[in-house]
Amino acid sequence: MLSQLNGYTPELLYLLHGDPAELAEMLSTMRPADVADAMNHLDPGAAAKVLAAIPFDLAVQVLDQPELESKAKIFGALDAAVAAPMLEAMSADERADIFRHLTEGERHRFIKLLDEQTRHELERLLDYEPDTAGGIMTTEFVSVPAAWTVEQTLRHIREVGQAKETVYTIYVVDRDQRLVRAVSLRDLLLAERTMPVVDVVERIPVSVLHTQNRDEVTRLISKYNLLAIPVVDEHQRILGIVTVDDVIDAIVHERSEDVVRFGGMGGFDESYNSLGFVAMIKKRAPWLCALFLSEMLTATAMQKFQGEIERAAVLAMFIPLVMSSGGNSGSQATSLIIRALALREVKLSDWWRTAIKELPTGLTLGAILGVIGIVRILLWQKLHLFDYGVHYQRLAITIGVALVGIVGFGSLAGSMLPFLLRKLGFDPASASAPFVATLVDVTGLVIYFSVAYLILHGTLL
Amino acid sequence: MLSQLNGYTPELLYLLHGDPAELAEMLSTMRPADVADAMNHLDPGAAAKVLAAIPFDLAVQVLDQPELESKAKIFGALDAAVAAPMLEAMSADERADIFRHLTEGERHRFIKLLDEQTRHELERLLDYEPDTAGGIMTTEFVSVPAAWTVEQTLRHIREVGQAKETVYTIYVVDRDQRLVRAVSLRDLLLAERTMPVVDVVERIPVSVLHTQNRDEVTRLISKYNLLAIPVVDEHQRILGIVTVDDVIDAIVHERSEDVVRFGGMGGFDESYNSLGFVAMIKKRAPWLCALFLSEMLTATAMQKFQGEIERAAVLAMFIPLVMSSGGNSGSQATSLIIRALALREVKLSDWWRTAIKELPTGLTLGAILGVIGIVRILLWQKLHLFDYGVHYQRLAITIGVALVGIVGFGSLAGSMLPFLLRKLGFDPASASAPFVATLVDVTGLVIYFSVAYLILHGTLL
Repeated sequence: MLSQLNGYTPELLYLLHGDPAELAEMLSTMRPADVADAMNHLDPGAAAKVLAAIPFDLAVQVLDQPELESKAKIFGALDAAVAAPMLEAMSADERADIFRHLTEGERHRFIKLLDEQTRHELERLLDYEPDTAGGIMTTEFVSVPAAWTVEQTLRHIREVGQAKETVYTIYVVDRDQRLVRAVSLRDLLLAERTMPVVDVVERIPVSVLHTQNRDEVTRLISKYNLLAIPVVDEHQRILGIVTVDDVIDAIVHERSEDVVRFGGMGGFDESYNSLGFVAMIKKRAPWLCALFLSEMLTATAMQKFQGEIERAAVLAMFIPLVMSSGGNSGSQATSLIIRALALREVKLSDWWRTAIKELPTGLTLGAILGVIGIVRILLWQKLHLFDYGVHYQRLAITIGVALVGIVGFGSLAGSMLPFLLRKLGFDPASASAPFVATLVDVTGLVIYFSVAYLILHGTLL
Repeated sequence: MLSQLNGYTPELLYLLHGDPAELAEMLSTMRPADVADAMNHLDPGAAAKVLAAIPFDLAVQVLDQPELESKAKIFGALDAAVAAPMLEAMSADERADIFRHLTEGERHRFIKLLDEQTRHELERLLDYEPDTAGGIMTTEFVSVPAAWTVEQTLRHIREVGQAKETVYTIYVVDRDQRLVRAVSLRDLLLAERTMPVVDVVERIPVSVLHTQNRDEVTRLISKYNLLAIPVVDEHQRILGIVTVDDVIDAIVHERSEDVVRFGGMGGFDESYNSLGFVAMIKKRAPWLCALFLSEMLTATAMQKFQGEIERAAVLAMFIPLVMSSGGNSGSQATSLIIRALALREVKLSDWWRTAIKELPTGLTLGAILGVIGIVRILLWQKLHLFDYGVHYQRLAITIGVALVGIVGFGSLAGSMLPFLLRKLGFDPASASAPFVATLVDVTGLVIYFSVAYLILHGTLL
């Protein structure tokens, strides 16, 4: 987790609330990422003024920062004459991202300002689904014909390099624009100048189909330690590239989303501060309501055991304890399997092997908790801290045995849930701790009262 | 989350169980990352045989993959004569990582085999704490004196480039080895050949102190879109670099660890498959036991309300429902704040503002659940699905009011917990869903029975 606070100096905080022109002057000496950071503390109107006031090159670099929030709103507040050259100069992927977030009217207003080629490129990018490789790629890559020499390629990089997202991988294409090689600038620099560029490396490059999910893009970049991955169509023609910095931003955001999903929401990609009261309720209530409705099954289950509770109120005392033990062991097992599936330590077909591992583990964990539970009851009774009645020994055994069953079941059910979700085509990480607990709670109550009936029948019950 | 299964072909699976020499031949046409992947399915002895059998260059590249597991064990099974040149040729950071995991005896055996300079470098890297910038950096970077020209620098890159971790950023140092500039290879290629390299860029580079945590390294690389970040000492002298691919591997692993931590374990960095039965119990039992011992407070709380339960067993029926609602709202709030703190949307000093936002949110969410709860009881009663007794209306109101209090308290407590953890110097992400639930459970019971006492006193109670 990130561990330091943003180092805003008091002066910057002062300027942030003062004159945009004065602020812009100060910002012009800062790095683009820091300017973006500072602008995230302004409302879109003020941010637009800052953008118009700082040097043009810096403004474009700031707009290319994925960390800059509410870009579409900032553009909505920009003068068209100021906005148009910025949109032209931006990188293609960030430009497409802005257009995705503009209102219909604004989109129409801005698209007219772009030159023919940029408009064409933009419209092509907007056709891809946002979560696919095509939807996150940029089109500013260096590609050269296979027949070129190393020398020609290096000269080409010097000519066009400034406008490209990266020059560190050069994509070599055949006559039909099909990707045949990806040559690193390092290999190119170390190679013979007269060599055909296609001969610099031997291997066919790793690429990703434009329809593939962006998680696959992340996985491939991470696995093969790439600085950029080429995105191709069905005929292996290169369409664009996704660079490593975009992927990092995506994982940093997704990483924090995983915790939110596991914590009991369907996903959450807004800023906590930007959500007002009503929006917050709308985001959170559905999940809590769904869980609440599922948990109502516990009330239904309890109705069945009303007789037992009336006869032995002492049984009710341990309901929270045994129930939570099931939920805890379940969410522990689920999180372990989500991790193992994500890291590909475990495959979908391993579900059976996992079940065979989790069941004895769960039963043993339950036995450990059971012994603690039994000791607790016997101790309280012996020390006269509480009187569980004449049948306290049978009660202690009931709690112990019930815990073995509940924790065993919790571990098994919790570990199988991610497999089931993946099998059904969902992301295993959409299993959340409250969901697992809810799943195990009802069963836990049934196990508890069944064990109680078996052990206490004829005495307490 | 990663979404595809490993594409092992049946032939590879067959070879994995067959002759290591035959396997090695097949592997020699594969990418290093894929070889590492395949070797992770072998035991260390077999993996060592494969490593000895494949071409030397490929073996070194495979060893440089952070994804390759149990490297120390593989080296433990390698012949010293085979191991020594591989250790020499490996990248410095991965070599240091292996030595960190070797036994004392093995470390002694291998360190003697290294040449003077490598040994010196290794010992220096081993001095850094593993979780710091110094502990994850590598020493193979390109640095040039400030007085050199662009032409000299480019020639130098061509000479030493093959042995460096990256050549895409060149570090310019003054006479005292202090870092003064970081020049990208792109800027260098586009610059005038006769220009002093120090003048190619104007800005002082982003760097990280060797003692800083590796999360800070990740944050800076991600924020400033760097391909590598220089690690410096207190005098700004450059010690090494951390490259972006190492950072990605770290976040991918940490991301999955977050879920495990939130799911109720102190952290888990082993492979699920590699842990045997006893090791698994040892990892999981302490957390479950700690939670179990805390949850025992619920039994203590329940003892206080034994009288109420004996008089009105119907109250016990809703214990699981109201208790779980508190836990769910708590873990939802905690996960939201963990995310907001991680993304720096919220700062430590915002705790008060967050509390003021969470309390009304929680009370409203509780009111929504309360209304559902009341409707449920009235409906069941009217439809004769269950008889809650003559005071069913007061019971319904009890459940409704208790839910407002419990969900309100759950949201407030859950949102404050990450702030408290950070204030105490812990990672906010070490708050786990079961821990939050446990925290809220006892309070939830007290709120429930207090509300019940107030509303039902004189009737049911």
